[in-house]
Amino acid sequence: MKDIPHTLTTGGLPASRKVYHPGTLHELRVPMREIDLNGEEPLTVYDSSGPYTDPAARIDIARGLPETRGGWLQARGDVQEYTGRTVTDADNGFANGARLTPAFPQPRAVLRATDDRAVTQLGYARAGIVTPEMEFAAIRENEGRLAAHTRDGDPMGATLPDLVTPEFVRDEIAAGRAIIPANINHRELEPMVIGRNFKVKINANIGNSAVTSSMEEEVEKMVWAIRWGADTVMDLSTGRNIHNIRDWIIRNAPVPIGTVPLYQALEKVGGIAEDLTWEIFRDTLIEQAEQGVDYFTIHAGVRLHMIPMTARRVTGIVSRGGSIMAKWCLHHHRESFLYEHFSEICDICRKYDVSFSLGDGLRPGCIADANDEAQFAELHTLGELTKIAWARDCQVMIEGPGHVAMHKIKANMDEQLKHCDEAPFYTLGPLTTDIAPGYDHITSAIGAAMIGWFGTAMLCYVTPKEHLGLPDRDDVKTGVITYKIAAHAADLAKGHPGAQRRDDAISRARFEFRWEDQFNIGLDPDTARDMHDETMPADAHKVAHFCSMCGPKFCSMKISHDIRAEAEKREGMDRMAAKFREGGELYVPEPSE
Amino acid sequence: MKDIPHTLTTGGLPASRKVYHPGTLHELRVPMREIDLNGEEPLTVYDSSGPYTDPAARIDIARGLPETRGGWLQARGDVQEYTGRTVTDADNGFANGARLTPAFPQPRAVLRATDDRAVTQLGYARAGIVTPEMEFAAIRENEGRLAAHTRDGDPMGATLPDLVTPEFVRDEIAAGRAIIPANINHRELEPMVIGRNFKVKINANIGNSAVTSSMEEEVEKMVWAIRWGADTVMDLSTGRNIHNIRDWIIRNAPVPIGTVPLYQALEKVGGIAEDLTWEIFRDTLIEQAEQGVDYFTIHAGVRLHMIPMTARRVTGIVSRGGSIMAKWCLHHHRESFLYEHFSEICDICRKYDVSFSLGDGLRPGCIADANDEAQFAELHTLGELTKIAWARDCQVMIEGPGHVAMHKIKANMDEQLKHCDEAPFYTLGPLTTDIAPGYDHITSAIGAAMIGWFGTAMLCYVTPKEHLGLPDRDDVKTGVITYKIAAHAADLAKGHPGAQRRDDAISRARFEFRWEDQFNIGLDPDTARDMHDETMPADAHKVAHFCSMCGPKFCSMKISHDIRAEAEKREGMDRMAAKFREGGELYVPEPSE
Repeated sequence: MKDIPHTLTTGGLPASRKVYHPGTLHELRVPMREIDLNGEEPLTVYDSSGPYTDPAARIDIARGLPETRGGWLQARGDVQEYTGRTVTDADNGFANGARLTPAFPQPRAVLRATDDRAVTQLGYARAGIVTPEMEFAAIRENEGRLAAHTRDGDPMGATLPDLVTPEFVRDEIAAGRAIIPANINHRELEPMVIGRNFKVKINANIGNSAVTSSMEEEVEKMVWAIRWGADTVMDLSTGRNIHNIRDWIIRNAPVPIGTVPLYQALEKVGGIAEDLTWEIFRDTLIEQAEQGVDYFTIHAGVRLHMIPMTARRVTGIVSRGGSIMAKWCLHHHRESFLYEHFSEICDICRKYDVSFSLGDGLRPGCIADANDEAQFAELHTLGELTKIAWARDCQVMIEGPGHVAMHKIKANMDEQLKHCDEAPFYTLGPLTTDIAPGYDHITSAIGAAMIGWFGTAMLCYVTPKEHLGLPDRDDVKTGVITYKIAAHAADLAKGHPGAQRRDDAISRARFEFRWEDQFNIGLDPDTARDMHDETMPADAHKVAHFCSMCGPKFCSMKISHDIRAEAEKREGMDRMAAKFREGGELYVPEPSE
Repeated sequence: MKDIPHTLTTGGLPASRKVYHPGTLHELRVPMREIDLNGEEPLTVYDSSGPYTDPAARIDIARGLPETRGGWLQARGDVQEYTGRTVTDADNGFANGARLTPAFPQPRAVLRATDDRAVTQLGYARAGIVTPEMEFAAIRENEGRLAAHTRDGDPMGATLPDLVTPEFVRDEIAAGRAIIPANINHRELEPMVIGRNFKVKINANIGNSAVTSSMEEEVEKMVWAIRWGADTVMDLSTGRNIHNIRDWIIRNAPVPIGTVPLYQALEKVGGIAEDLTWEIFRDTLIEQAEQGVDYFTIHAGVRLHMIPMTARRVTGIVSRGGSIMAKWCLHHHRESFLYEHFSEICDICRKYDVSFSLGDGLRPGCIADANDEAQFAELHTLGELTKIAWARDCQVMIEGPGHVAMHKIKANMDEQLKHCDEAPFYTLGPLTTDIAPGYDHITSAIGAAMIGWFGTAMLCYVTPKEHLGLPDRDDVKTGVITYKIAAHAADLAKGHPGAQRRDDAISRARFEFRWEDQFNIGLDPDTARDMHDETMPADAHKVAHFCSMCGPKFCSMKISHDIRAEAEKREGMDRMAAKFREGGELYVPEPSE
């Protein structure tokens, strides 16, 4: 594979160093990012970008990332190697010859649970085992903190400990309130935890291009999204080569990879929804589980009797998976095979520890359809399915809307908490208005920040191109940064201990005119620096005690410094005057009269 | 002035027509925008863009806009023409020769109240008079609706009538809950109302360039901001030529213009805050009132005893006006002249109907400083000042923060409502996190949407360049569109009757694959169309029943239509079957046994 040009974006962000924190219970190297500051201790922040931002890492996508989890799995002794399913032409959308993306070149073991052993993180948590995955995720959550920080927020029912311990992660997973998506066949993973009592996470969607693209290009989409902070990535590819491309992505992914297996199953029946069968779907689940997909979106909540509830909607069914299943149900006039075979799906997920992301196939597609009968009927079914999955030790999160005006957002969270027993909520936005195509990252960031505060554990990003076309590189970055903002605003509002550290650090830098620190602490140092340099490009201005916005005469920060200096001077004089008066009393008083 | 090149952006938005609605009580031409749709009635929307988007209007910035209000003022018979103050060199920052921007060339009358007559909208409202300004503003609020529409929302204490009548506007103004900023010397104005029980408004800030720019360029900044939806514009210019540039702007502004007179006063004393005097400030107020400034930001709430409260803040005082006054107070160690002379300021504002925008000089400049002692102490003082202004029939709104994490936003609104007796709140954002320089339009849109829902009447925009540099044309547009999103999301959440019309119209267009309608109903048709065309440029694709995002096989909307067709077919069969059974009963039953 020498002929693959190396086109990945690598190297650290400005002024940043990759550091690795050790484990206490397990031998771990947990990656964090340290941002160097001028005159302050370096700031440690969460880092989902993987080895790509470590200059010391050897990156070769044809080898994939190191299988860090290999030893952990072996040590548990409950998995077995076996000969996986044979890849068929249909798996790759019947691509062949020059149009076929090459298979990932390294041979690798395919694992599954031995007998009916529960090899899921939920299974271990229930058995009281603190896995390396749990400790890894716990260490990341503290962002290098060793002590509690400012507590200021309204947790809205969340329970946020001062410091996240591995045992706390175990507890949360055992209770079903959190998941660590970690397929035993994705051994390249850097584990992370999704739950209401942890930092709010974000997901970025990627998909293959219509024109044949190279493996590097497909891997780069994932690398680019995690560079800016995506915590998980969903591969929503369709059409040709999806099996092989998925392999390349997972082998090079330090973050959990999610998919919607229904998309691939539909490809296998030539795009005819009615022709889908349980057997084809089941085979697709096994195919993807063997590859290492960490979570599956399963639209098992769309039931036959709910479909008429969407008839009077303004925009009908807008979930692709939901509409495919609705069409199937209506055509055959029978219950969805996903619902009927849900226990069997659980058996497969249990064998590989694929987490469920129970899809909201009936989510609203516009403001008018929000919180309607169809949406909540499905949510209640997702609650039932959660219990079935939990009974089989499967990890579960629940997908949520979509398009919801602000006053209806809280009800979504409340209903989800109530009916799904606090299983993590994973929402798309929601968009708070539909009147701004081209700006739906913003219409949805408003809703995302709010629902994140209310308790949503992971926010699925929306890019500026939503409803209009496929996002390009810039759109993906804008979407990720926008959602990092929403997630962080939610952490601040919940009072996540330590969340405010980064705000305080940037505020101090701002007040002290440390421009470079301001840029580097920010979510997107490059853009901040470029914007600043447009009007004040010279290096001298990077240390100027004012900026182009107000100029020196009007700079409130500069005046604030003057005020402080003046106040201190005055205070000094007052102190001296007081001392003098004090002293006066100590000495012999002047004779009166 | 023939040599002034015509460089303004004029012409309507795509598929849009300017229409004028008549008054009932007064002879009025209230401008609205009608968007033509395919197969639906045109959609009428609020239009703040003025004559610039009317192809029939004759635009000549050297003549200014028509003085529509001239007749209204004459009819009231309570104002007198007089010889205004003489413009001095200091008014223009001592610009001269080639560096002096020419004065506005048309002679015009300067008006003030006769004797002590209350010529303010509040004065009229209290006297039971429904002015043309009130009727004008009322008609706009209904956006062409003649009937109530969907009521769905949580008004959070707001009282939103099904239709806004001129009498309702009068009531709200009389109660101090709303203002119509409308200086009697700004007769070119298209009046609009700011209040919690009306549509949420947005303000855009503009300022002169450091390098000498032409009058067209300065006017164009305002024209550009209102084209995208700014309801008011604040001219925050400093330095040279500000008097003359302000004249050009006001003479060509259909929207209220706000200023911070302190900035100009500071210029007159060479930028030395300590050298400011009440006399210089007073003279500046009269200068700007005679020009027609519609609202003044006055930082009279910053009192001497509050300054030490900012000493332990992370970012001190970040309001320019606040820091200037704090410096003055500290230097002289005496109470602010704005506070001490507040009654006299009211007398000036009363004479011209300049509305107050009571400035929040002690607003927080970072997450850590939000809702602190200094901020709320000042807010309480603003409440006192409100009562003083109201006693003199002056219209008042109150400025608010700033930088506030989500969980502290509601308290800002609650405190403001409580201490300022429901005078309209006018907030800057607030930014919900500080960690994203370059994206502060987004960090603040989250807070703006929320506080708008909670009751804020006007939102001051923030552009992507906030904290980094001066916004360019694209930044201004991005800021305005972002804030239109926040304001509209707030209207939807409050349940503003009619707000959802536009969302529903775009949702129907989306479901019916009317791409052109989707673009044109949106806040930024150009950007939406460009984004769509990047991946599906051909005209044929503008009528395609799918798009580039999912393709035809995966298009949920297309499948939804198939489902509906199938459901209808099935329903048709069921109906026929039912009829057959029914018919069977009407005929002779088969003999049983």
